[in-house]
Amino acid sequence: MKAMQTRKLAAEALGTALLLAVVVGSGVMGETLAAGNVAIALLANALATAGGLYVLITLFGPISGAHFNPAVTLAAWLSGEKGAGETAAYVVAQGAGAVAGVWAAHAMFDLPLLQFSQHVRSGGAQWWSEGVATFGLLLTIGLGVRHARERVAALVACYILAAYWFTASTSFANPAVTLARALTDTFAGIRPADVGGFVLAQLAGALAGWAAVRWLLAGGQQEQGLAEVQRP
Amino acid sequence: MKAMQTRKLAAEALGTALLLAVVVGSGVMGETLAAGNVAIALLANALATAGGLYVLITLFGPISGAHFNPAVTLAAWLSGEKGAGETAAYVVAQGAGAVAGVWAAHAMFDLPLLQFSQHVRSGGAQWWSEGVATFGLLLTIGLGVRHARERVAALVACYILAAYWFTASTSFANPAVTLARALTDTFAGIRPADVGGFVLAQLAGALAGWAAVRWLLAGGQQEQGLAEVQRP
Amino acid sequence: MKAMQTRKLAAEALGTALLLAVVVGSGVMGETLAAGNVAIALLANALATAGGLYVLITLFGPISGAHFNPAVTLAAWLSGEKGAGETAAYVVAQGAGAVAGVWAAHAMFDLPLLQFSQHVRSGGAQWWSEGVATFGLLLTIGLGVRHARERVAALVACYILAAYWFTASTSFANPAVTLARALTDTFAGIRPADVGGFVLAQLAGALAGWAAVRWLLAGGQQEQGLAEVQRP
Amino acid sequence: MKAMQTRKLAAEALGTALLLAVVVGSGVMGETLAAGNVAIALLANALATAGGLYVLITLFGPISGAHFNPAVTLAAWLSGEKGAGETAAYVVAQGAGAVAGVWAAHAMFDLPLLQFSQHVRSGGAQWWSEGVATFGLLLTIGLGVRHARERVAALVACYILAAYWFTASTSFANPAVTLARALTDTFAGIRPADVGGFVLAQLAGALAGWAAVRWLLAGGQQEQGLAEVQRP
Repeated sequence: MKAMQTRKLAAEALGTALLLAVVVGSGVMGETLAAGNVAIALLANALATAGGLYVLITLFGPISGAHFNPAVTLAAWLSGEKGAGETAAYVVAQGAGAVAGVWAAHAMFDLPLLQFSQHVRSGGAQWWSEGVATFGLLLTIGLGVRHARERVAALVACYILAAYWFTASTSFANPAVTLARALTDTFAGIRPADVGGFVLAQLAGALAGWAAVRWLLAGGQQEQGLAEVQRP
Repeated sequence: MKAMQTRKLAAEALGTALLLAVVVGSGVMGETLAAGNVAIALLANALATAGGLYVLITLFGPISGAHFNPAVTLAAWLSGEKGAGETAAYVVAQGAGAVAGVWAAHAMFDLPLLQFSQHVRSGGAQWWSEGVATFGLLLTIGLGVRHARERVAALVACYILAAYWFTASTSFANPAVTLARALTDTFAGIRPADVGGFVLAQLAGALAGWAAVRWLLAGGQQEQGLAEVQRP
Repeated sequence: MKAMQTRKLAAEALGTALLLAVVVGSGVMGETLAAGNVAIALLANALATAGGLYVLITLFGPISGAHFNPAVTLAAWLSGEKGAGETAAYVVAQGAGAVAGVWAAHAMFDLPLLQFSQHVRSGGAQWWSEGVATFGLLLTIGLGVRHARERVAALVACYILAAYWFTASTSFANPAVTLARALTDTFAGIRPADVGGFVLAQLAGALAGWAAVRWLLAGGQQEQGLAEVQRP
Repeated sequence: MKAMQTRKLAAEALGTALLLAVVVGSGVMGETLAAGNVAIALLANALATAGGLYVLITLFGPISGAHFNPAVTLAAWLSGEKGAGETAAYVVAQGAGAVAGVWAAHAMFDLPLLQFSQHVRSGGAQWWSEGVATFGLLLTIGLGVRHARERVAALVACYILAAYWFTASTSFANPAVTLARALTDTFAGIRPADVGGFVLAQLAGALAGWAAVRWLLAGGQQEQGLAEVQRP
């Protein structure tokens, strides 16, 4: 029904907004307090993001699936579990929420709301990093939903904690997050000109991860798509 | 019955006392050992607080609901799940416990028991931070109770771990905690003059969070208030 | 039967040995790598200890109850759940295991096996810290067994993670651990002359915690002692 | 059937590759960002590895058992749960995956793919460390499967988090990982000449751990081997 659909989109927007507030806010806090020690800033950033993801996926999963990520929603569409209309609406809600979350973080730290990052993130190693990061994320969600449905929130949180550190790009792994992080000239930022390369790499990695899940789960067990993956 | 009521209030007081001992004690320890590196002090403070919250909510939830927070108790009253009398008694027990916990921490670190903080925490960005922090806390508790009742302790712990970092105020998000932290001139302190602004922002955020939960859960599922939220 | 009893004592000894290897070994590693930053050393020490406790209590709980701590075993005796003979055997196994664990750690770090600590840990604030720490530990175990039996390992781990930071003594909270830590002149050490004060404070705190648990659980629910508390 | 066998080997190879990408990648990131503070680098390395292990064991456990470790596979063969052929195939898949994972990490950080470590790791204390580390790992898996099957992923993750810190060798505890880490001249590396000593110590520790599990579980409960230990 209509009201339910509104709630799903609101959940995607609010959840993505809070996710970005966590990512950007903890980045600012870490950079400020760590006084030049980037490792400690990233440690705080990673722990805060993981904690936030665990909470947000658990809270919003039963409402909207807690995608918060166009790459995940597109995989659901690819699997035929979401129609084109709902897919588009999800992506718009995620993008709008992400931008609002960045601005909420700026307001908390008394920074100008509208900013553009000058942080260069480009080149083959960065793109390969984003591809691997998103491949792993789709694997985590796809196999996690099948093998440990009630732990998907914990799995995604732990995966991102690791991925902040094992990839050279600190694992954006999410087109909506990438776009919104172009709008903050702080720790978590990415130069607007570099968004395109990141998003393409993420989509390629997501597609590979989606295909790997399908192959690994083929036969022996009942087929299941990626959509609604984070529903408990 | 009478004895049961006494135990509930004792649980609220003891739990809030231990929570404050953890918050203030780990702040002192962190500040002392980190020797000027505030990021490491806050990391220790945040991990200790999260660990403590997970334990205390799990232990006392089945006895008193483990509110430890007047903003949560007021939401329960607003939902009609607690009468005015019990609400008032809870808030008094939380406040008294919080102050006792601060003093217990001072005794552990050989500091004067009675102190007043000189730490300025004021201004719009700080209040917005507290509003967002308490909004998120109520969302975590309200949706958590509905969607993952047995994980509320873990959810609140992870939320606060993130909120220590993503808000500019380090997320007090609790009027009793705020009041008691005015009584310590250490890492976790807040100037007594700044308590009022924090508490108002927290109550506004709590109200917004409570309303968001009601709207998100309306229809489709049976209505449920915020009271007793942390009961397993 | 006899063989079962041998296995229980072996489990207590082996578990306590591994616990001490973790506590002392991670202390040496932390102190060595952190190069003077004590906060980072304690952070590593605390995370390693928490991780180790979670594992060891889960593994050995179903065999021996995973006490690893004379204060816990004495509480079980006080509750009438263990006879004097088994209590004594447990305490001896814990003490012997603890010492062996310290020596295993020394061998891993190429240090002289037999050492005596010169680390002064004494005075009222330290004793109050140990009393609070052990009070909280008994509360965690006693209420945890009643309210969340299958999570006691996680509860104890999170409690100790917090207690390393919120007490001025870094929370030994265990007479066997205290004794064994007198035998290492490294990060985790305690001067042999200071062991007595710590142990007395721990026993007083344990007694208070045991009494608090009994009172909080009295009425309404079936009485249950502290013994075997960590059995799943 | 044939296809199932291919999937199991692919799961072992892919899981081990991702594990090595996490271990090596987070080591490079930590070393780069920590700017000489080795403790912070190891903290990041340990948290990333633990997070990664929790995810990978949960995802691949139901497919291949998620050994990712020849010492574990050999214990399964010793228990008669895997034939010589499958054991050999598993070990080859693990080794190949491990090497691929190292190269994937090098590509992410724009480093030459083919490298040899110059990091000396040798001597009795290091070998004793590896023996203890692998003993503990087999204990964790063997007792964990029996006593808390659904938590084996969390147990292994927490064990390795602790073992990175409490052993002097940072706990390789895995012959395939050791071999592959000879191929990276970064934080996680080991000189090729030192691989043999590490592997021998690991196999000795694994054998001792396997025997300890058998003895501790003998009688009272139905015998169960180590193979398939990580299947939920």
